[in-house]
Amino acid sequence: MDEMSAESRYADWIAVHAGQSDLRAWALAADGSVRAELTLPSDSAMPEAPAFEAKLLDTIAPWLGQGSTSVLACGLTGLADLPEAITPVPAKPAERLPIRVSANDPRLDLLALPGLSQANPPDLLLGEETEVAGFLAGNPGFDGVLCLVGPRTVWVQISAEEIVSFQTAMTGEFFDLLAGHSTISAAVASTGMDAEAFVDAVSDTLSRPERLSQRLAALRGQHVLQQLDPSVARSRLFGALIGAELAAMRPYWLGQQVALAGPSDMVDLYARALDTQGVSAPRHASDGLALAGLARAWFAMQEHAK
Amino acid sequence: MDEMSAESRYADWIAVHAGQSDLRAWALAADGSVRAELTLPSDSAMPEAPAFEAKLLDTIAPWLGQGSTSVLACGLTGLADLPEAITPVPAKPAERLPIRVSANDPRLDLLALPGLSQANPPDLLLGEETEVAGFLAGNPGFDGVLCLVGPRTVWVQISAEEIVSFQTAMTGEFFDLLAGHSTISAAVASTGMDAEAFVDAVSDTLSRPERLSQRLAALRGQHVLQQLDPSVARSRLFGALIGAELAAMRPYWLGQQVALAGPSDMVDLYARALDTQGVSAPRHASDGLALAGLARAWFAMQEHAK
Repeated sequence: MDEMSAESRYADWIAVHAGQSDLRAWALAADGSVRAELTLPSDSAMPEAPAFEAKLLDTIAPWLGQGSTSVLACGLTGLADLPEAITPVPAKPAERLPIRVSANDPRLDLLALPGLSQANPPDLLLGEETEVAGFLAGNPGFDGVLCLVGPRTVWVQISAEEIVSFQTAMTGEFFDLLAGHSTISAAVASTGMDAEAFVDAVSDTLSRPERLSQRLAALRGQHVLQQLDPSVARSRLFGALIGAELAAMRPYWLGQQVALAGPSDMVDLYARALDTQGVSAPRHASDGLALAGLARAWFAMQEHAK
Repeated sequence: MDEMSAESRYADWIAVHAGQSDLRAWALAADGSVRAELTLPSDSAMPEAPAFEAKLLDTIAPWLGQGSTSVLACGLTGLADLPEAITPVPAKPAERLPIRVSANDPRLDLLALPGLSQANPPDLLLGEETEVAGFLAGNPGFDGVLCLVGPRTVWVQISAEEIVSFQTAMTGEFFDLLAGHSTISAAVASTGMDAEAFVDAVSDTLSRPERLSQRLAALRGQHVLQQLDPSVARSRLFGALIGAELAAMRPYWLGQQVALAGPSDMVDLYARALDTQGVSAPRHASDGLALAGLARAWFAMQEHAK
């Protein structure tokens, strides 16, 4: 910030993505170029709107000038995620407009991009819909399934720029809970990955998904009795959980065009797992997707206001 | 303790069961009658032997007299749970003898009942083998499967007083992790139970076990979009997890004589789940099983020493 000149010190507008594991904010110029950005850890629970606004202010206060600054937020904000504000699918994510929500602090002109809800099966996107809009900005005309990998992974069926349906799995969350706080934590205490063990576990779980429970519990016995290498055990845990996810999500990848986006280490695992089933899925960085989607909504709103 | 007379103040011997969720200790008379007992919370990780001894001393110090007192322990003690001390199945749990282990404190004559290990699939019992011995003391000649319900539930095939094989599931642990620390925690924040929702979830998961991942993830959508009653959501979570366990453990209950033992609320759920599959499983309190098994080993050791 110190190196900024006086006229570029303040953001013309601010974009915010409250994701499952972090909150990212960008200070933007009128043309959408990035002047500064910040990333904070967040938890995956939905905050209350006042708590979100307070945390937001802490984060972006240095970017605020005199008068009010527009802040466009998506994700787990608590601002527009009430059921009545979540719009249903199908939806064209690139054509959705922000809604203005009241802010306590007069420096904020708060705008929120609501999530998307699906009635059957009941499910919701909270920010991922904006990542889809960003993905479509870079991949116009994409027709197929975009798998957004994260603590909660979402499989989104896209056709004619429209989100047709989606389905969520909790694989990343499962992994973190089991690796961090369970009787198999010691067995998987490693950061390594054994490709063969991973692929075998994916295939075994896909062919016998009903054995998931004993497959995971068995890692303790393999650890204590066989001194199983923790990186192999970790690979088996990941493989079993991703295999179980693929078993649940079969309609979303079998015979489909699948694209993957998310943190590169996780996306690599999903790609390898899908590859065992003969599905070749191109990998995309997820880093810029939310900002691209927010910018798209921002400029659509400017256009709309003319 | 205050009401004890001087001569009964000290334990003749002490029995200890280090279980998955608590550590229980009994001050016993020579004839095995209970003079006092204590329960402490514990975690499910395997302690190191010195840490276990220190915790044990904190717990039982008031029961120790002059000279050394025999303390017979089973479960997650770290004392005899090293691979070389875990005896393999098949095993007659009632005929197993304690092994003497060195103690740092001269007031302790430490005896440990080792766990049981199974090579294929690799799995281990750490204290449950002693509960089985206690169960067989009360149910001599039992032939069938004893399901010991807990954070880790163990299904034990018993024939001719012998543990023939066993298999572990992590259902209770899963439930606690998901209910306590996940994106579906808010959805299941209740202590209630809806029998119909539970039974439906068991049946659905047993018939489509590959859908477990999406079934659990869907609870958030049901919560936010449909304001699903948290007790119904909790029942669905329990039902899905126990259904998945039954799917994994089919050889242990299909066409088998099954007996259940464990905390009554959990045992009731397992009984109801098995009932959906036409399996009627008698329920046993698990409270006295470990002590009965420890007493059996203690008196067998006395007999052996003659």
